[in-house]
Amino acid sequence: MIKVGIVGCSGYTAIEAIKLLLRHPNVQIVAATSRQADGSTICCMHPQLTGRINLVVEDLTPQQLGERCDVVFCCLPHAASAPIVSEILTHNCRVIDLSADYRLSTPKLYEKWYGNAHPDPGRLGQTPYGLPELFREELRDAQLVANPGCYPSSAILPLAPLIQEGLIETASIIVDSKSGASGAGRSPKVGNIYSEVNESFSAYAVGTHRHQPEIVDIVGRFTGTEPQVVFTPHLVPMDRGILSTIYARPTAGVTANQVRECLNTFYDREPFVRITAHLPLTKFVSGTNYCDISVRENGGWIILLSALDNLIKGASGAAVQCMNIMYGQEEKHGLHP
Amino acid sequence: MIKVGIVGCSGYTAIEAIKLLLRHPNVQIVAATSRQADGSTICCMHPQLTGRINLVVEDLTPQQLGERCDVVFCCLPHAASAPIVSEILTHNCRVIDLSADYRLSTPKLYEKWYGNAHPDPGRLGQTPYGLPELFREELRDAQLVANPGCYPSSAILPLAPLIQEGLIETASIIVDSKSGASGAGRSPKVGNIYSEVNESFSAYAVGTHRHQPEIVDIVGRFTGTEPQVVFTPHLVPMDRGILSTIYARPTAGVTANQVRECLNTFYDREPFVRITAHLPLTKFVSGTNYCDISVRENGGWIILLSALDNLIKGASGAAVQCMNIMYGQEEKHGLHP
Amino acid sequence: MIKVGIVGCSGYTAIEAIKLLLRHPNVQIVAATSRQADGSTICCMHPQLTGRINLVVEDLTPQQLGERCDVVFCCLPHAASAPIVSEILTHNCRVIDLSADYRLSTPKLYEKWYGNAHPDPGRLGQTPYGLPELFREELRDAQLVANPGCYPSSAILPLAPLIQEGLIETASIIVDSKSGASGAGRSPKVGNIYSEVNESFSAYAVGTHRHQPEIVDIVGRFTGTEPQVVFTPHLVPMDRGILSTIYARPTAGVTANQVRECLNTFYDREPFVRITAHLPLTKFVSGTNYCDISVRENGGWIILLSALDNLIKGASGAAVQCMNIMYGQEEKHGLHP
Amino acid sequence: MIKVGIVGCSGYTAIEAIKLLLRHPNVQIVAATSRQADGSTICCMHPQLTGRINLVVEDLTPQQLGERCDVVFCCLPHAASAPIVSEILTHNCRVIDLSADYRLSTPKLYEKWYGNAHPDPGRLGQTPYGLPELFREELRDAQLVANPGCYPSSAILPLAPLIQEGLIETASIIVDSKSGASGAGRSPKVGNIYSEVNESFSAYAVGTHRHQPEIVDIVGRFTGTEPQVVFTPHLVPMDRGILSTIYARPTAGVTANQVRECLNTFYDREPFVRITAHLPLTKFVSGTNYCDISVRENGGWIILLSALDNLIKGASGAAVQCMNIMYGQEEKHGLHP
Repeated sequence: MIKVGIVGCSGYTAIEAIKLLLRHPNVQIVAATSRQADGSTICCMHPQLTGRINLVVEDLTPQQLGERCDVVFCCLPHAASAPIVSEILTHNCRVIDLSADYRLSTPKLYEKWYGNAHPDPGRLGQTPYGLPELFREELRDAQLVANPGCYPSSAILPLAPLIQEGLIETASIIVDSKSGASGAGRSPKVGNIYSEVNESFSAYAVGTHRHQPEIVDIVGRFTGTEPQVVFTPHLVPMDRGILSTIYARPTAGVTANQVRECLNTFYDREPFVRITAHLPLTKFVSGTNYCDISVRENGGWIILLSALDNLIKGASGAAVQCMNIMYGQEEKHGLHP
Repeated sequence: MIKVGIVGCSGYTAIEAIKLLLRHPNVQIVAATSRQADGSTICCMHPQLTGRINLVVEDLTPQQLGERCDVVFCCLPHAASAPIVSEILTHNCRVIDLSADYRLSTPKLYEKWYGNAHPDPGRLGQTPYGLPELFREELRDAQLVANPGCYPSSAILPLAPLIQEGLIETASIIVDSKSGASGAGRSPKVGNIYSEVNESFSAYAVGTHRHQPEIVDIVGRFTGTEPQVVFTPHLVPMDRGILSTIYARPTAGVTANQVRECLNTFYDREPFVRITAHLPLTKFVSGTNYCDISVRENGGWIILLSALDNLIKGASGAAVQCMNIMYGQEEKHGLHP
Repeated sequence: MIKVGIVGCSGYTAIEAIKLLLRHPNVQIVAATSRQADGSTICCMHPQLTGRINLVVEDLTPQQLGERCDVVFCCLPHAASAPIVSEILTHNCRVIDLSADYRLSTPKLYEKWYGNAHPDPGRLGQTPYGLPELFREELRDAQLVANPGCYPSSAILPLAPLIQEGLIETASIIVDSKSGASGAGRSPKVGNIYSEVNESFSAYAVGTHRHQPEIVDIVGRFTGTEPQVVFTPHLVPMDRGILSTIYARPTAGVTANQVRECLNTFYDREPFVRITAHLPLTKFVSGTNYCDISVRENGGWIILLSALDNLIKGASGAAVQCMNIMYGQEEKHGLHP
Repeated sequence: MIKVGIVGCSGYTAIEAIKLLLRHPNVQIVAATSRQADGSTICCMHPQLTGRINLVVEDLTPQQLGERCDVVFCCLPHAASAPIVSEILTHNCRVIDLSADYRLSTPKLYEKWYGNAHPDPGRLGQTPYGLPELFREELRDAQLVANPGCYPSSAILPLAPLIQEGLIETASIIVDSKSGASGAGRSPKVGNIYSEVNESFSAYAVGTHRHQPEIVDIVGRFTGTEPQVVFTPHLVPMDRGILSTIYARPTAGVTANQVRECLNTFYDREPFVRITAHLPLTKFVSGTNYCDISVRENGGWIILLSALDNLIKGASGAAVQCMNIMYGQEEKHGLHP
C-alpha cells in the first residue's frame, strides 16, 4: 500500500484527491493536515465523506509527515506551499505539489509573475511538470512533481504536439478559456458568493493571469523560440469544467485534417486524452480524468477546443495519475470515471 | 419629490431599493451611507448602476440623515438597525426598517429569539408591519414601518385572510419554504459561495429560524389564540424567489373552493397579489412586486402555494409600496414589473 | 461475468446504469436496445462514453435479449415496459424494471392511478420492491424486481422503520419533496427546457402524482392500516438530487431521540444509508448510492429529512444494488462513490 | 398611442417585447398572433402576464394586422418571417422584423448562408439595420427595420467605430462569444433541455454560424474592404446574457488608450452604450437595454469585451428603441432598466 498524506485538506482539490484515492486499490490515506485542525475528523470537516474514511485532521510537521507517508499531496496555496514542500522532501518523502510554486522554469520568471523571490529556487527547472502525456519518463523517479495548473493543462495538451511537429505558428496563439467556479477555490470572498456568480458570465484577469506564463513556459519546451500566447480566462456559472477555445495559425499548407491526425497519433495510446469528432462539452468530462480535444478551422485559423474537469484532470486526477507513474501502478487506478 | 436616504447601501436589498426608486417618478435619492464609505460613488460600489445615478457614499450621522432626507430605508442587519433607527426618528425623518428589529410585538419575544434585550423596546407593538394588504391604514401616518421578512410575507399573505375568516385550523399549520440564495445576503461565508450552493438543495435552521415567531406573531393578530406554525426554510440554487408550500387543516366542512373564494375576495383589488389558477412559479414573479397564490387540496389538507421575489415583494418592493402609502403616492409607482 | 442488457438506452437512467456497470468488476454489458437503433454505437448516442465501451445499439426482440443476457435493466417508460418485461421473463432471463409498472400491489390500484388496465396483472403483488434495505431477502431469488421510484425511495427509507416500530402516527404524514430536473427524464417538452427550469422553483402535480400511492402502498406493508400520506413534489433548478422534508406526528411520548435511535439501529449495517447529524444536502450524496437521513423536531412534529441522488439511489444505483443481491455479489460492486 | 401588434407571440423575444411595451407610456398592444391561437388570452399562454394585459391571441391575416396596427413586431423564425412581413408592408403598416430575414445586404449572401433563395430579395440592401447607435438616421422613416442578431450586436457595437477610424486591422478579427440559453429559443429539442445545458459549457456551430456573415456584412459597411472575422459561439448555463471577447490587431502605433478614447467619444451621448473601466459582466446588463464595453490589451492584441442581454439589447429592447426612433418618441421609453 502507498501511504499518502494530504497537506491542506480543507479545500476542493483536497476533497477531490481524497475521493479519488479512496477508490484506489493500493493506497492508504494516512494523514490529513490543516491549520484548522482541532482534533476532529476529516468527516466533520467534509460531511460528504461520512462512513468512507476514518481520519483525524492534524497539524503535523514536515518531519512527522515524512515519517508517516510515502508521498504527500500538497494542496496549499502558492507561496505557502514551497517552504513546506522543501522541508518534507528532506524527510525521505515524495511530494506532488498542487500549487503553482514549482511549475515555472526560472526564479526570475517566478518573481516577475508572483511578486516575490522564490524560497526554493534551486528546484525550479529541475522539477518535472505533471502532465504524464508529455513528461511521463521524467515522472517515474521524481521526488517532487509540479502538478499542472487547470487552465494550462487544457491549453498545453492540444498545443504541445502541434508545436513540436511545427504544424502551427507560435507567434499568434490565443487561448480563450472558460472555467467553472470551483477553480476560484473555497475562500469566502464577495466575488465568489452564489448570487454574484450565478446567472453571470465575465472575463477576469485579462492580460494578467499567472497561467499565461505557465502555458508559454511549458509549451516553449517543445519549440526553439518563445511562443506568443494570449490567455483570457472567464468565469462560467457552473461548478466544474474548463473549456478552452484556442486559435492558432497553421504553418504554410497545413490543414485541419493534418492537425487532427497529428493529435490522433500523439494521443493514440493515452488513456485520458480523447480526440473527438464531436465538439467537447465540459459535461462529458465532468467527474472524469479525461481531456477531450476537437479540431475545427475557420477563416484561416485552426481552432482547438479542449475540455477537462478542472478539479480532476486539471488538478487532483492529474496528481493521482502522476502518483501511479511514480509508483509503477496501473495508470488508471483511482481514476475510472 | 420625496427625498430618500439609503442606510447600509452595500447589500442586495439596498441595490434593489435603489433600482426601484430610480424608476419612481417622484423620488430623489439624496443619501447613501455605508461604513465602507471612502469618498467614492455608489456606482463604484455597484458598477451596474453606472450612468444611472450620481451619488457619493457617505458615513452620515442620524442627524445628517434627518436633515437631508424625508424618509430613510434602513438596510442594516438586525441588531445594528434599531439603535440607528431610533436616533434617526428623533430628527424629524421617517424610517422604513428592512431589518427584523421592529417586527415582533413584544420585547420578551424579541429577546427569546434574538438573544439580547431590545434597545428600543417601547416601539415594539407600536410599529406597523409593512404588509399593505393587511395593514394599509396603519401605514399612512407611520413614522416607522417594520418591513416584513421575506419568508413571513409569503406565508402571511395566504394565511391571514383564511385565519381571520376561520376557514383553517390554527393548531397544525406547516410552512415548508424554499428560497433563492440572495436571501442569505451578501456576506462572504463559505456556506454562501457558489460551489457550495450550486447543484445542491437542503433545509437549514430547522425549528430554529427567527421567521417562525414572526409568522406566528403576525398571523396571530387575526385570531384569538396563538396559532401553531411549523416553519422549515430551504435553500434553492437560484438567485431569487421564495416558494412556500403551506399545509393547513380546513375547519369542519370547508372546501378548497371556499378557501380560494375567500382569497379571491380578499385580494380582489390588490395590485400586487394574484390568486392564480396555475401553480405559482418563482420565475413568474421574479423581478416583480407580485405575490402569486394558488390553492389545492390533498388528503384532507388545504395546500396553499405562494411565490414572491424575496428581494422585491419580500423586501425592497414592499418598502417602496409602504413609502407610496406613507406619502399618498400611487401605490404602483416604482413597482411596475 | 454477469451478462447485462440495457433496454431503452437513450435516457438518463440508462446512461447512469451503464456508467455504474462499467465500474463493476464482474459485469459485461452485452446488449443495448433502442427504437432509435440505426446501426451506430452507444458512444454515438452518448458521446461521453467514448473510449469506455464498444457496443452497437440494436433493436432486439425479447427472445434475442433472453438468449444473450443473464439480466436485463429495463429503462422504458411506464406502460411501455410491462409488455416487454413479461415477454423477456419467458426467455430464461431476469429483469430489473426501472419503470413503475410492477411497483404497486394490485391491478386495481394500478388502474386507478395509471388510467389503464395492467397488461400483466398476475405479477402485481408478487414482485419484490427493489429497496434492499427493506426487502433484501425477497430479492435474492427474484426473476423480476420492481425498481423503486426516486421520490418513494427518499420517503420510504426514513418512514418504514418508524412505522414498523409504531413510533409515528400514520394518519397525518406529509412528504414535501424536491427534485432536480433529471427526474423529468430526457424528453424534449417546453416545460423541460433550460430557460423554463433555470432560476425557477415550483410545485407540480399537487395531489395527483403517482408516487403518492406508491409510498402509501409500500409503507403500508409495515403497518396494519393504510397510512394517510400527502405527497407534494417540487422542481429544483439543478440536475440531480432529491430532498424530502417529511412531517409526521410522533405517537404518544415518543421523542426525536427515540426516532433517531430507531433509524440508527435499523440502518446500522447498511452500506448505503447514513443517519447523519448534519442536515442532509443533495450535494453530499450526488453521484453516490447513499441516502442520507436526519431527524429534527418542531412544534410537536417529527421532521425527517432525507437526501439521495435520484438517478443513483433513486434509480440505477438501486438497480445495480438489487442485481448484486440477485447474483450473490458484494453489494457495493459498481457503487463505490 | 402607437398601436403595436406582436406576430408570433409564443417565444421569448415576444414575451420580452410585450413586457417592455407594457412599460411604454405611449404604446397600446392591440394584437398578438400565433398559429397556436385557440381563442384563449395571452395570459393563458404566458401566465406571468396575468393581471397586466387583456388580449386574445388570434390567427390574423397580414391585412387584418395592417388594419389594426401602426407597427408590427414580427417574432417569427427566419424564413417564416419574410413572406408575412412583405405582405404586412403592403397594408400601410410598418414592421420591425426580429428574424434574420432582412439583415444581410444581398440575396446571394442570404442564399449562401440560409440555403434558400430569398422570397423578397428586393428589400435586401434597402432595409436599415436596427442598431440605432450606428444607423439612427436611416431608422426614422423606415417602413421596415431588420432588427439585429444578438451576437452581432455585441460584436458590431465595439468594432464599428474602431474600423471606421482605422484603429484596428480588419484582416484578423476573432469574436469569441458566449450566450445564455434563451438565445436558443423556446423550441423543445433534447439539446435545449435543462439537464443537458446545466453544468456544461461548450462551443457550437464553429465556423458555420450565420451570425458570422452578419457581423462581416455590417462591419464591412464601415470600411472599404471586407473584414476577415472568425466567430465562435458558446453556450453558457444561464438564462440570459452575451459576453463577447473580441481580439483585434491594432493598426501601427495605436494603443489601447486610443481605442478606449475612440469608443468613449463615439458613444458619449448614447443612452444605452457604456464604456466601462470594469470588465463587463452579463449580470450587470441583465434585464436592461445596455451594452457595456471595455478595452484591454495583451501580447499585441486589443481585447474588446462587450456584454448585453440577448433578449433586450440583443433583441426586443433594440426593437423598442428602433420603434421609439421611428415614431419620434423619447428613446428610453419602455427601456428604463
